[in-house]
Amino acid sequence: MTQRIYLDYAATTPLCDEAREAMMPWLSREFGNPSSLYEEGRKAKEAIDAAREVVSSALGCLFGEVVFTSSGTEAANLALIGAAIAHKGERRRVLVSAAEHHCVVNARSLLERLGCAVEMIPVDEFARPLMPPVADDVLLVAAMHANNELGTVTDVASIARAAHESGALFLCDAVQTFPWLGDERWTVGDLAADLVCVSAHKLGGPKGVGALYIKAGTDVSPLALGGGQERELRAGTENVTAIVGFAAAVSASINDPEQGSRKAMARNAFRRALIEHETPKLHLLPEDVETLPGHLHLRFEGVSAESLLILLDRTGVSASAGAACSSGSIEPSHVLLACGWAEAAGEGVRFTFGASTSEEEAILAATRVADAAKSIALA
Amino acid sequence: MTQRIYLDYAATTPLCDEAREAMMPWLSREFGNPSSLYEEGRKAKEAIDAAREVVSSALGCLFGEVVFTSSGTEAANLALIGAAIAHKGERRRVLVSAAEHHCVVNARSLLERLGCAVEMIPVDEFARPLMPPVADDVLLVAAMHANNELGTVTDVASIARAAHESGALFLCDAVQTFPWLGDERWTVGDLAADLVCVSAHKLGGPKGVGALYIKAGTDVSPLALGGGQERELRAGTENVTAIVGFAAAVSASINDPEQGSRKAMARNAFRRALIEHETPKLHLLPEDVETLPGHLHLRFEGVSAESLLILLDRTGVSASAGAACSSGSIEPSHVLLACGWAEAAGEGVRFTFGASTSEEEAILAATRVADAAKSIALA
Repeated sequence: MTQRIYLDYAATTPLCDEAREAMMPWLSREFGNPSSLYEEGRKAKEAIDAAREVVSSALGCLFGEVVFTSSGTEAANLALIGAAIAHKGERRRVLVSAAEHHCVVNARSLLERLGCAVEMIPVDEFARPLMPPVADDVLLVAAMHANNELGTVTDVASIARAAHESGALFLCDAVQTFPWLGDERWTVGDLAADLVCVSAHKLGGPKGVGALYIKAGTDVSPLALGGGQERELRAGTENVTAIVGFAAAVSASINDPEQGSRKAMARNAFRRALIEHETPKLHLLPEDVETLPGHLHLRFEGVSAESLLILLDRTGVSASAGAACSSGSIEPSHVLLACGWAEAAGEGVRFTFGASTSEEEAILAATRVADAAKSIALA
Repeated sequence: MTQRIYLDYAATTPLCDEAREAMMPWLSREFGNPSSLYEEGRKAKEAIDAAREVVSSALGCLFGEVVFTSSGTEAANLALIGAAIAHKGERRRVLVSAAEHHCVVNARSLLERLGCAVEMIPVDEFARPLMPPVADDVLLVAAMHANNELGTVTDVASIARAAHESGALFLCDAVQTFPWLGDERWTVGDLAADLVCVSAHKLGGPKGVGALYIKAGTDVSPLALGGGQERELRAGTENVTAIVGFAAAVSASINDPEQGSRKAMARNAFRRALIEHETPKLHLLPEDVETLPGHLHLRFEGVSAESLLILLDRTGVSASAGAACSSGSIEPSHVLLACGWAEAAGEGVRFTFGASTSEEEAILAATRVADAAKSIALA
């Protein structure tokens, strides 16, 4: 049987051992409802609070500034829509980078129902926002720390400054960079953000849990309505098991500062091997554009991403055309369109490497990719 | 050490063995993102679809009529707010039984922001709605199948008929009755509902997952915005592990048709023992009022629920004053206030029994409850 090589760590990651071990008691003897006042409930509440301590410390923020959600998407939605609900004044414009994830871009429909106009911030050819001046009727500006498709990194602090100068809030999607931007740790202070969304399953934690940092004093109304959980910011019985696993994965990730280098090693081996294969019409990002160490975005001119990915799947390589959050068929990426790729947008393919991807696997994958691209180009 | 007796199964249940076993592969070797088109992703998608098959079959509905959410709360929110977003016409009133769960009652704030007026349907002394005529500007009527605090059962089909006669939608919260109303199975057709919300962790499944039945043709807009998951009705990477566990718990529950009798046996033993203890001023619901077999709601006149529950916790009995979805201190239940309990609302206590609660445990718990009530009354 062909050895499968998983190169889509930006879409989701396997659950790390530390997360699994931390979750196991909550899948067996522990089960209390954190809102219950008796012993079983208090233990569940303590587990959530211990997890919140870990996640808030990793974000460099206060304990009470972290709200657990069911996903990064819900965290981004809560930031955008929650801010729009909470602010009833004159600030009714929301500026969103055109290369944001769907969970930011597609919040538009509900924001509009709530009386906000949503405008797109143009981006350069590498998905980095080209900030216009921020007028004083802007409620919120959203820009991501690193783009999930290209892996390019944005100087979000300068965007935050522009937002803050006009009195607007700044939301940063840090799903791809938590808790490491390459081999550097960062804090919400470094991003100068009022709102930061993160997700567990991108860093070795379980699916079904994310978190939103809400800077103390920032006015956000809940989007999930009901009980008083998460300090009345997110109703619904907490997913204790997943929250505990999230924290364990964050701790494990923080304890592995070499992971960026290992990802880069595999990614670079893949890139070198691909270049050596002399595949025709391979386009890569220029090496001087800063990207996350595990990301490699490319296209083969004239080779559709869909055909390439289907063939790669058959030969045992898992990769994607971008966000794995769409509906099963591959549409041209809105990110690449925003970057000005035009018809080439249907050719963009993303390979993302994990800390455990070996150079051997990366080189083997490059051979398969080169073969697939050649066979499609010749067909 | 004192043997703890857990009597709050309506708040949450331990994870059943079947759910845990079904979840284990998704906590180890399986991890794909269901939106990914390659093998790992397709397996995850297939697991979700298999789960949807089980849950839709248990609800007696079509495969495509079930949307998985992160909780019962999110399911109810999606029904209410999603219907309000989708319907832009003249129907701008929402009628909600005053004894609904917080996840329905508290949706009010966002419904109002969306231009809907929310009105409370009064309830009788046992939390059953006293339906007014439904005018033709009503968008939706919400009433729960069985009340989570009192355990009383409502003839929701007759409420559904009243709603449908005026062209309104009917939402039924069936969190307490899925998949069994006592020893009877039911379908969404029996409830005559357009929207039904359910939750996994009330029936032996994991926390972090619920579902909404949306009758084919019912217009509901998504509340979670982003990717195209759940047929564009609920964005965010699916919690595959929890969804798989939910389905396994549903199957296990369906395969245990005697569970209602066992719960009733424990509940009745508890009630008999409590009466035999001749506790002063014990008030129980009349026996001819239909309740769920595992529910026993009571009060001791002059004994505050908070004092009683704290003392019970110390003596090893876990019970609650009602919904475990509030913020840590016990407030008078809005359900009991709606039932006309007035100052006695602060005295209501709920004991809910599981299918594995033994008669011996129930009788021992009754002794502790009687002792606690007496000691507080004498203090």
